Amino acid sequence: MKKVGVAILGLGTVGGGTYRILTEKREMFRQVQKLDVSVEAVLEINRAKAEALGVPEGVLTASLDDVLNNPAVDIVVEVIGGVEPARTFILSALKRGKTVVTANKELISKYWYEIEAVAKEHRAGFYFEASCVGGVPIIRTLIDGMQANRIESMMGIINGTTNFILSKMANEGLDYGSVLRQAQESGFAEADPTSDVEGFDAAYKLSILSSLAFSAKVPLEEVYREGISGIDIKDINLGKELGYTLKLLGIGKNTEKGIECRVHPAFIPKSNPLASVDGSFNAVLLHGDSVDDIMLYGRGAGALPTGSAIVSDILYAAKQQEHYYTPFPNTKKADPATRFVTDFETRYYLRLTVADAVGVLSSISGVLGRHNVSVLVVEQRGEAKNGAAEIIFITHKTFENSIQAAIAELKKSDLVYAVNTLIRVED
Amino acid sequence: MKKVGVAILGLGTVGGGTYRILTEKREMFRQVQKLDVSVEAVLEINRAKAEALGVPEGVLTASLDDVLNNPAVDIVVEVIGGVEPARTFILSALKRGKTVVTANKELISKYWYEIEAVAKEHRAGFYFEASCVGGVPIIRTLIDGMQANRIESMMGIINGTTNFILSKMANEGLDYGSVLRQAQESGFAEADPTSDVEGFDAAYKLSILSSLAFSAKVPLEEVYREGISGIDIKDINLGKELGYTLKLLGIGKNTEKGIECRVHPAFIPKSNPLASVDGSFNAVLLHGDSVDDIMLYGRGAGALPTGSAIVSDILYAAKQQEHYYTPFPNTKKADPATRFVTDFETRYYLRLTVADAVGVLSSISGVLGRHNVSVLVVEQRGEAKNGAAEIIFITHKTFENSIQAAIAELKKSDLVYAVNTLIRVED
Repeated sequence: MKKVGVAILGLGTVGGGTYRILTEKREMFRQVQKLDVSVEAVLEINRAKAEALGVPEGVLTASLDDVLNNPAVDIVVEVIGGVEPARTFILSALKRGKTVVTANKELISKYWYEIEAVAKEHRAGFYFEASCVGGVPIIRTLIDGMQANRIESMMGIINGTTNFILSKMANEGLDYGSVLRQAQESGFAEADPTSDVEGFDAAYKLSILSSLAFSAKVPLEEVYREGISGIDIKDINLGKELGYTLKLLGIGKNTEKGIECRVHPAFIPKSNPLASVDGSFNAVLLHGDSVDDIMLYGRGAGALPTGSAIVSDILYAAKQQEHYYTPFPNTKKADPATRFVTDFETRYYLRLTVADAVGVLSSISGVLGRHNVSVLVVEQRGEAKNGAAEIIFITHKTFENSIQAAIAELKKSDLVYAVNTLIRVED
Repeated sequence: MKKVGVAILGLGTVGGGTYRILTEKREMFRQVQKLDVSVEAVLEINRAKAEALGVPEGVLTASLDDVLNNPAVDIVVEVIGGVEPARTFILSALKRGKTVVTANKELISKYWYEIEAVAKEHRAGFYFEASCVGGVPIIRTLIDGMQANRIESMMGIINGTTNFILSKMANEGLDYGSVLRQAQESGFAEADPTSDVEGFDAAYKLSILSSLAFSAKVPLEEVYREGISGIDIKDINLGKELGYTLKLLGIGKNTEKGIECRVHPAFIPKSNPLASVDGSFNAVLLHGDSVDDIMLYGRGAGALPTGSAIVSDILYAAKQQEHYYTPFPNTKKADPATRFVTDFETRYYLRLTVADAVGVLSSISGVLGRHNVSVLVVEQRGEAKNGAAEIIFITHKTFENSIQAAIAELKKSDLVYAVNTLIRVED
């Protein structure tokens, strides 16, 4: 039976989950996978974490050199997170010819080109299923399941923290700040929630998934990003009345005009399968030209779900005679032949506070019309107060640049007191 | 660049879709997959089909020997369907060392042991992603994505025809017979619909998927099977009022008692993600002990979706240095160590016509109670007529043998005029 030695760098949540799966299921992997997978080294400074998991004395180390010099280690699992020291550790392991498995979406989205070049040079494997959508095998599906397709689009809920917050706001009618605090207290959001709530985490994942789906490197800089920290519960409630659910979406499209990638809050109709993906669950809807729609749904985070993806990569990697490398150029930038779309086309929900006066609506409609923004729904909400009224517009499909130009002009108008909200509406 | 020669046996719906994808996307596969995949032979007697697809003269043949003797053919795609001649063709190809890709669920569920033994002996590959759930990469997910899990259960809508019929009955309030006729006219059901509507097709797929999920051969004979031809629109409507949607489900469980596999109509609550899977879409919900719930959703049939799975297998197979074989025994029967559960435990919906008389309810409840069937909901529906009333029960979890014994006793009772319906209720 083939022996596979694994080293785990970092015993945080995911490292701990990975250790547990590998040790508890060793016999199952021997029987079903015909692989004898053993944890040969664990790099962790915090001895208490190692003791709590029962890591044996001889396996635990605080020195990367111990790990890299250990000839029994074939596969190095990096679950430290962040850019450094993870980047240096991964590059060092690859240079020794060791295959690397990681969950580090930030690192991959920023240094994929560098890591893959080193992996290729040393014929080592580089696997990162766990970096996107936790335990859901989305990367395996893109690489090994949808190859017969030109993938035209993807739309997903790819960050659990923001989905937890938005679901709770919508279900309980609470405002952003108080739900964020609850999420922090119950461990669903970090003490510094910026990476999740401002959409960075989702943008990392979208750059990775889009690159694989569209077979073209999509650098992080090409992903439009907007978070949920400015979301007002008022708009969630108004959207609900209009039949919409608010989600933080990662959207990727590959059209004749080029590749378009964006992360932002969006209203989707309740009939969209993503609308019912609640709490910390994630889901991605893919459209391929042969297979039509496919949706994958599951847990986007957590010790065991993400550990499941890591261990899946270990077992998969152990069976490869030749590792897979993407055909992307080894530069930080995209292939110059790849075009990116920034003036994307969608529908918009717009909430304004305007003067309660005759001719206001026609004036605003005039501004929108001059910028080729045509209106599908317009509603005044509530009674006018102190000479001011609140109006909601939902537009037909229009271009981002057009709506932004229209808003710039509206902001200059004496009749428009405030542009409260602009939220994109997707189908 | 590696050259891969493909032969397609049969130009039916799926064969045609496969031919189109392979020829139209040849350049994409060269660029992205670094594989030059060419269709070297097409076995089809109907020349008109071949001409409609533009199959070149030199590629078309009516002789299997032509295909097998062609040294340019590496991979043989069998899309004839049914047991013979598909079985003989596949075995002949494998004996020549050619890898086989097939969508033939009936053949695999009945002759897997024989085919795999021959494939192993000749070190040829045997791939069948397209046999289950069309374009959805469920087999790849089981083999390459969920290996870190002990899969505890799966529940799926794995037959498009019956889902189309049940969705249409529910949405339009039509009876089974008229919807079946419409489905036949529009091509969603075959002229002889038996394989779909009586659950055979779903049972084939469930035996394949359960075998892979539970790493134990589940012969077709161990799959309990019940179709939808006896479904009364009345029960669909009554179920709807109670918050349930009726689906034909394939259910597999792997518990301490053993493996349990069943195909039958079942009520599921509207909150179950499978409840909103409408029309000809398919979906499978899997539960792994590490990853928790995963759902895969997509088109279960059709030329291009199923062709997508076939071509995915071709590209995947072409990259393998060693093919994968299941560790199942090479006999038709299951491993004697595998236990199967037939007395499964679930909830039940029961509709009876009973005498409109004092003491009837207590008499029926007494019978149920004696068989350890405890009742969650009991309702009389409508007014009593001609001395008869209609009563619906929904039970707590109980065993199949218990409810069957209770029904046998109820049928003997003078107070019970008819046992109209027994439908299982799943969560």
